[in-house]
Formats: sequence, C-alpha cells, structure tokens
Amino acid sequence: MEFDNHCVFCKIIAGEIPAAKIYEDDKVLSFLDIAPFNFGHALVIPKTHCHGISDLPDDYRDAIFAAAAKIAPAIMRATGALGFNLLMNNGQVAGQEVPHAHLHIIPRFVDDKVLLGASQKQYQGSELAEMQAKIQEKIAARNA
Amino acid sequence: MEFDNHCVFCKIIAGEIPAAKIYEDDKVLSFLDIAPFNFGHALVIPKTHCHGISDLPDDYRDAIFAAAAKIAPAIMRATGALGFNLLMNNGQVAGQEVPHAHLHIIPRFVDDKVLLGASQKQYQGSELAEMQAKIQEKIAARNA
Repeated sequence: MEFDNHCVFCKIIAGEIPAAKIYEDDKVLSFLDIAPFNFGHALVIPKTHCHGISDLPDDYRDAIFAAAAKIAPAIMRATGALGFNLLMNNGQVAGQEVPHAHLHIIPRFVDDKVLLGASQKQYQGSELAEMQAKIQEKIAARNA
Repeated sequence: MEFDNHCVFCKIIAGEIPAAKIYEDDKVLSFLDIAPFNFGHALVIPKTHCHGISDLPDDYRDAIFAAAAKIAPAIMRATGALGFNLLMNNGQVAGQEVPHAHLHIIPRFVDDKVLLGASQKQYQGSELAEMQAKIQEKIAARNA
C-alpha cells in the first residue's frame, strides 16, 4: 500500500481529511464528491497511491470496479436516478484534477445537463484501417 | 456466455457484423468506435450479453478493465494522446445507446472540445450527511 504525503486522497484514506464516506473495504474507499455533477455523485478510490488505471495494481483495479458495481445501484435507489455514468479521467488533459486514481459514479436524470460527449468525428478512406493497424502494433509491442 | 440475436454488439462478437478489432481474448473484444469523439476512440465489450456493470459477471468485469489497462496506453502511443477517459454509460438516460455493456476509451488532446462535465452543484446544510446516510442504508440493505 503506497502513501503519498502530499495527496489529498491519501489523506482522506488516512483519516487526516474528512469525507462523507459511503463504502469501505480493505482495498477501496468511496465517498461523496463535494462538488457533484448531480447529488449523489460519488468517487471510488484505491487505498494505495497510484495515478490511473495503468499503474493500478490488478487486485485494486478489480476491487474498485467490483465496489462500483455494488455502490452504483445503491446510489440509484437513494436518489431515484434512472442511470449512471462510470468515469475515470486519466491525465490532466482528460480532466483529472487529483493525481490519485479515482472512479466517478455519476447518477443521471432526464434533462440534467450533464454533458459527456463531443461532436463525433468521421474516419475517411483508409484512416480507420490505419488506426486499427497502428494500435494493434502498439499492443503487440507491449506484449513482446 | 449469453447471446442476444437482436444485439449489434453480440453480432460483432459472432463475426456477423464487421468491426475494426484491436484486441481480443476469451472474455473481451475491443474495436474502434466508428463515430469517435477523437480518432482512436475504442470500445471494450464483454463477450457475453449483459446491460451494464451491475449485471456483468465478475470475471467479465475484471477482464474488461484489465484489457482497458493494456489497450489505453497503446492507443496513447498510437495517437500521441496525452491522457484518456474511461467511460461506461449505464442506462439510456446516461447516454447508453447500445444495451450491451461497453466501456469507452477516449484518447484526449489539448483543447479537443470533448466535454465530460457539468456545472457543479453544492450541498446545503445537512444535505451532504443526509445523502451519505441514505446511500449507506441502500448499500446495507443490499448486503442484508
């Protein structure tokens, strides 16, 4: 279990900063986001300091999403939400504000003005096949 | 392994509909989204028909996020992205268009106009503690 003295989420795990905790087990902590997109918006974090999904130890990764599968339906029942988003931002450019991996559970309602999207782009000609080949090559390079 | 005759993602898994596949193992298939938010935007789906994270069998859930942890860095290297979002929409109100669980991997670039957010709300007075208690109660009810 890694601990970073300068990390606000590590401090919440250590009990040095308060949070509205809703779930906890040996690998995972979940608490309400205090600046929610919708009320009931929660975060699920691993109890070890890491930056994102790619440096998250396997057992913590499994534990986070297993916890989310339990917590999200409870948030729906508590709020009357009709659905929810799971969102994990990896990197500042992706909107990650705290550099400790965290999964957002965002309860959703009709016309709630939460935006999760963009104008959709179009691949032209051979671009789709080229992108496919390039990614396959990088996946293969990692496994080599 | 569940198969739904009317599901476009089940048909992609079965090879009845083509897709630009980038990764496959016994439980998971990943392919490029043909209407991407950014080029390289991929989907990761379980090779069994289920609607969302809450009815996804544990081993498929673990497999999807394990695959995403491998695929996302490859997409970054292939596209030059500086970060990425993992997004799983659960329910129509949350933006889920195909009712077969799927995880979006969205590569991100500076000023790319991808919006994943909302104006943030504020809990007033005892609202935060009340929401916390209500969700804790629903989690406890599920475990009882």
